[in-house]
Amino acid sequence: MTEHAVTDPDVMDARAINTIRGICMDAVQKAESGHPGTPMGIAPVAYTLWQKFLRFDPADPIWPNRDRFVLSEGHASALLWSLLHLTGVRAVDPDYEVLGRPAVTMDDLKTFRQLDSHCPGHPEYRWTSGVEATTGPLGQGVAMSVGMAMSGQWLATRYNREGFPLFDFDVYALAGDGCMMEGVSNEAASVAGHQKLSNLCWIYDSNRVTIEGHTDITFTEDVAARFLAYGWNVTTVADANNLGMVARALHSFRTEHTRPTLILVHSHIGYGSPMEDTPKVHGSPLGEQAVRATKRVFGLPENLDFYVPDGIYEWFERGVGTRGAAARAAWEASFKEYANTFPALADEIERMQTRELPIGWDADLSPFPADPKGVASRASSGQVLNDIARNVPWLVGGSADLTPSTDTWLKVDGGTGFEPADRAARNFHHGVREHAAAAMSNGMALTKLRPFWSGFLIFSDYARGAIRLSALMEVPVIHIFTHDSIGVGEDGPTHQPVEQLASLRAMPGLMVFRPADANEVVECWRVVAGLRREPAVMVLSRQALPTFDRSVVHSADGAARGAYVLADPPGGGDPDVLLLSTGSEVALAMNARDELAAEGIGARVVSMPCWELFDRQPAEYRDEVLPPSVTARVGIEQASSFGWDRYVGPAGAIIAMHTFGASAPLKQLLSKFGFTPDRVTEVARDLVREQHGEGTS
Amino acid sequence: MTEHAVTDPDVMDARAINTIRGICMDAVQKAESGHPGTPMGIAPVAYTLWQKFLRFDPADPIWPNRDRFVLSEGHASALLWSLLHLTGVRAVDPDYEVLGRPAVTMDDLKTFRQLDSHCPGHPEYRWTSGVEATTGPLGQGVAMSVGMAMSGQWLATRYNREGFPLFDFDVYALAGDGCMMEGVSNEAASVAGHQKLSNLCWIYDSNRVTIEGHTDITFTEDVAARFLAYGWNVTTVADANNLGMVARALHSFRTEHTRPTLILVHSHIGYGSPMEDTPKVHGSPLGEQAVRATKRVFGLPENLDFYVPDGIYEWFERGVGTRGAAARAAWEASFKEYANTFPALADEIERMQTRELPIGWDADLSPFPADPKGVASRASSGQVLNDIARNVPWLVGGSADLTPSTDTWLKVDGGTGFEPADRAARNFHHGVREHAAAAMSNGMALTKLRPFWSGFLIFSDYARGAIRLSALMEVPVIHIFTHDSIGVGEDGPTHQPVEQLASLRAMPGLMVFRPADANEVVECWRVVAGLRREPAVMVLSRQALPTFDRSVVHSADGAARGAYVLADPPGGGDPDVLLLSTGSEVALAMNARDELAAEGIGARVVSMPCWELFDRQPAEYRDEVLPPSVTARVGIEQASSFGWDRYVGPAGAIIAMHTFGASAPLKQLLSKFGFTPDRVTEVARDLVREQHGEGTS
Repeated sequence: MTEHAVTDPDVMDARAINTIRGICMDAVQKAESGHPGTPMGIAPVAYTLWQKFLRFDPADPIWPNRDRFVLSEGHASALLWSLLHLTGVRAVDPDYEVLGRPAVTMDDLKTFRQLDSHCPGHPEYRWTSGVEATTGPLGQGVAMSVGMAMSGQWLATRYNREGFPLFDFDVYALAGDGCMMEGVSNEAASVAGHQKLSNLCWIYDSNRVTIEGHTDITFTEDVAARFLAYGWNVTTVADANNLGMVARALHSFRTEHTRPTLILVHSHIGYGSPMEDTPKVHGSPLGEQAVRATKRVFGLPENLDFYVPDGIYEWFERGVGTRGAAARAAWEASFKEYANTFPALADEIERMQTRELPIGWDADLSPFPADPKGVASRASSGQVLNDIARNVPWLVGGSADLTPSTDTWLKVDGGTGFEPADRAARNFHHGVREHAAAAMSNGMALTKLRPFWSGFLIFSDYARGAIRLSALMEVPVIHIFTHDSIGVGEDGPTHQPVEQLASLRAMPGLMVFRPADANEVVECWRVVAGLRREPAVMVLSRQALPTFDRSVVHSADGAARGAYVLADPPGGGDPDVLLLSTGSEVALAMNARDELAAEGIGARVVSMPCWELFDRQPAEYRDEVLPPSVTARVGIEQASSFGWDRYVGPAGAIIAMHTFGASAPLKQLLSKFGFTPDRVTEVARDLVREQHGEGTS
Repeated sequence: MTEHAVTDPDVMDARAINTIRGICMDAVQKAESGHPGTPMGIAPVAYTLWQKFLRFDPADPIWPNRDRFVLSEGHASALLWSLLHLTGVRAVDPDYEVLGRPAVTMDDLKTFRQLDSHCPGHPEYRWTSGVEATTGPLGQGVAMSVGMAMSGQWLATRYNREGFPLFDFDVYALAGDGCMMEGVSNEAASVAGHQKLSNLCWIYDSNRVTIEGHTDITFTEDVAARFLAYGWNVTTVADANNLGMVARALHSFRTEHTRPTLILVHSHIGYGSPMEDTPKVHGSPLGEQAVRATKRVFGLPENLDFYVPDGIYEWFERGVGTRGAAARAAWEASFKEYANTFPALADEIERMQTRELPIGWDADLSPFPADPKGVASRASSGQVLNDIARNVPWLVGGSADLTPSTDTWLKVDGGTGFEPADRAARNFHHGVREHAAAAMSNGMALTKLRPFWSGFLIFSDYARGAIRLSALMEVPVIHIFTHDSIGVGEDGPTHQPVEQLASLRAMPGLMVFRPADANEVVECWRVVAGLRREPAVMVLSRQALPTFDRSVVHSADGAARGAYVLADPPGGGDPDVLLLSTGSEVALAMNARDELAAEGIGARVVSMPCWELFDRQPAEYRDEVLPPSVTARVGIEQASSFGWDRYVGPAGAIIAMHTFGASAPLKQLLSKFGFTPDRVTEVARDLVREQHGEGTS
């Protein structure tokens, strides 16, 4: 580790690259699990990018204007762990404080893939700082990088001022053959080309080997030509080990100002090992013997594990470290001055970083008046969304080509759409690309915008891979889904969600809201807007829902507790039966309550807009809302009954969908599938009679 | 309707096309709901294809060698309904008998989008004959068409013999801008190019208008260049109304023998109407006035609705009808002769058509011997799958690049992979394209092969859009998912399914199997193979599962009832507590049962490999397995607890996942997340004590 060891830059480059390869091999070998081949093949490219191009300060890995590096081929995580370790990236705590300790210690590397190591099997955002996005499910990383690049353009346009180029970061994503095959990456690449994201660079690590064998067996398209068709700049590096070629390609990205860039790099999986260019080296350790043989090829001491030659840490410090520190220092000085000149804008930038909202963000929220005819929750939500957006400048959103149907167009700030010529617009046209829409929204959230996107609830299925990542990364993306049930009507079963609500509720860490009327919409939005670490799903109706008269029923504030008593038996007294429901079915429950009252049966209506919130309430509150003594309970929801038993219990009944829907006007569907006051009344009456005999209380 | 009316073919062509347009406008107008614009724009192309090219006999819409027409832009269903009506397609019953009545009557057209009409909002397979695939969720139709085209190649190679070209059908899909944007279509197009499917023709109806506006706002890639990059033949029709150009393009497809063909057709949404080329005409009726104005443009009597001019039915009869009837008659004669020469092959073809299995298909299934160390269910399943495949020649399958991990390679018939040079292979390399893999499998099932495909359970999320269509269409695709839980281990939370089981169980019509040991694997496969109308999901472990000693525990036959008593308390007597579980957790329950027995607590272990089957059993059986009197119940599953309450009840407990998983070796994860015999024992003991006081039975 003596300074004089750093003499010939070429020697140091080679040494640094082989150090990375050695660590990757050793980490996988020690874990007896992992993916050594990809890191070994692409290490020279990742090294060159980090050491010579990336504007990233290891001392502050959350500096807002850092270049982003997304390892889309997340199985190559050992490569990232090596880089985070060797460059000395600092840890960051959950409150966005940079800590003194390293993000990845040598001990972490040695406990790769073991419980609690900061080097898990795949890159995990928020678990290890320096990870810009959770990756592993292929295609997601590149798709998120498109969202990040759009954010970069948006931030630059909103915040940069003459003499203050606060935001000009680039976004790099490293992707393999698998990423290139996934539909979500195709969708996102099309968007990036359309949007002319010249701050975006995908490095395609083409080793042409996947788990089943050579890509010749299934993937023979001309990827370069495909990206040219999308409108990208495409350049090729014929040999991943040729650092000069790699650097020239990265330079060509830097000088391209009108298109995103694809660098197609020909690499060799498991480079240097006896199993080079074979699937064997993809997903298992090389074995002790092959590790030693490979270390000999790389000039590494074959009996030393996790070997870091003298001077390597310093070498990284001199490269990415020094460059990043200087860039950050200059930026911070500039930002200080900027804050004096543009205090309001600086305040916005600062709040965004810690996911705070502006003071007074909810000033425009106001209750909706009672209205028996009512309003579709998509429409009330659209109004509330605009009321919030007016005060939260970085709340931006788009739709997968359904804005007019989902009612999510932001009319604020000119009400325009984000385009190359209009980079400060608040609306994004994602096209008919649900999966990319969700993934790009994740990328926007990772760059600290507050994004939503919208579609029909049925198409949440297309986006699940990305919705799951919102939850796993704990980023507060808002997924807005309208047309939430057989309420879709004539479009029929292909467009009528049934199992989607249950599917989303089953996902850990996701908050699913299905408000019953316009005032619940307001209260649900109030909760959602305040979320800092949890993604939310808003499930909204196409059809009008009556706005309850809150002077007669309980306040919609209860929505914030997930479920609440909307109304007790009109005649007073303890309820004989509980009617539990969400969304459009709450009004149905209210009607049944009246019918039951006429028969002398006391029904309580419980509105349950967010099960996850309700489950978090103290038992006392839950028992107050759903008294354990009342076992006559009817769950009513135009969705799969799956999951309702938790609240309804074995003595209760569930009025729900047990098949797919049908194509017909809603009224016909309601009677076909049994969502009528008479049916609810009948089921409730039968339950009460069963339990109490013919005479009811 | 006089014969002499049919004079000038050009006049009749124009009249037929405008008739279709008129019906589409009227149907949408009458329904006050639907999508008139697309049919009006693309009618000339669909007409030309049907009338002049399609080898399809309306008198037998399930003739095995018919050309397939998939309306991937399913919102244009009125176009298909018009064609099915005008060509006189016959209805087919669920047992594959062609009926005398028409598939689509004039009354059906007039009740478009009403309950029970055979003209629902989107094309629904099995509901209306002549519909080759359920479409509407964009991208699915084109992706299925790739599976159909692969099936066509496979069938030809397996069954055609010198002088008997039994299978040479072509597959056409009509797709819009939305289909082209969806990831699943990109994935499938890449496969089609790689596989050189020259029997596949996509017609791209490029009207460049989507719901949010002109495609300029989000979709400006060069689609033709993209398809060239995939290896397709691409040809352009500059004007959808130029029937000569359309015919020439379709001819060019017919003469292309090495590549799939994309015909890019420039069309005008809402052609002829006042709102032509605007999004207004996409998804709502034109309005009475505009309908009349448009009819004038088309020379249709403006005051007659659903007008079919004299001679039009006969004209279709002379075109597609006569050509189709001749082709089918020739085929049937040929097949008769073929059946004499190759009776075994003919028998296969006939059984496939009605989804029967060969006699003796399960002859090779045999029980696995008891083995405490056991075998991963992916491995036992792989063996059983091969045992079945040996006797079911049209059981074919593939994987989204995970065959070595999912253990689904078929070793039968040479054990090769399907490629242009090997069209009879039983294995398909779908590449890292889960969504297309599932959609293409749907297409293969629609052409009566018996397909499976495999991946990791976590990636079922990527394929949900297509899995749902398996269920909605009621086609028996087998979706095989391994790596079914935190049992994945070191790969960590991105690869560990949690909510996927619940999500799949919530889907109507889908059968989800999670067998506990090798013998349950056999029995589950026995059920799955026999399914004729239901898709199944097999959920299998990566890690070894002990093979229970069936001389000690109950027979695995019980798996066929969905859930069964695997073992009662070792000491005999009624159980104090029920341990309910599936898959890998059943062995855990068995261990806890022993621990509990040592404490004098009698535990029954219930294995529940298929909830859907169990829910269908008579109440008597269900109560026998889960006696209502025993409310101390523990549900144990390495998945979201969502849905378990149904069996466990409010007095029970659920040991499940409440968060995402973590990256670590399985043993560490089992104790971190509480899947240990001690924990199960503790929870069960507490429940029993709570209910019975400290002294237990």
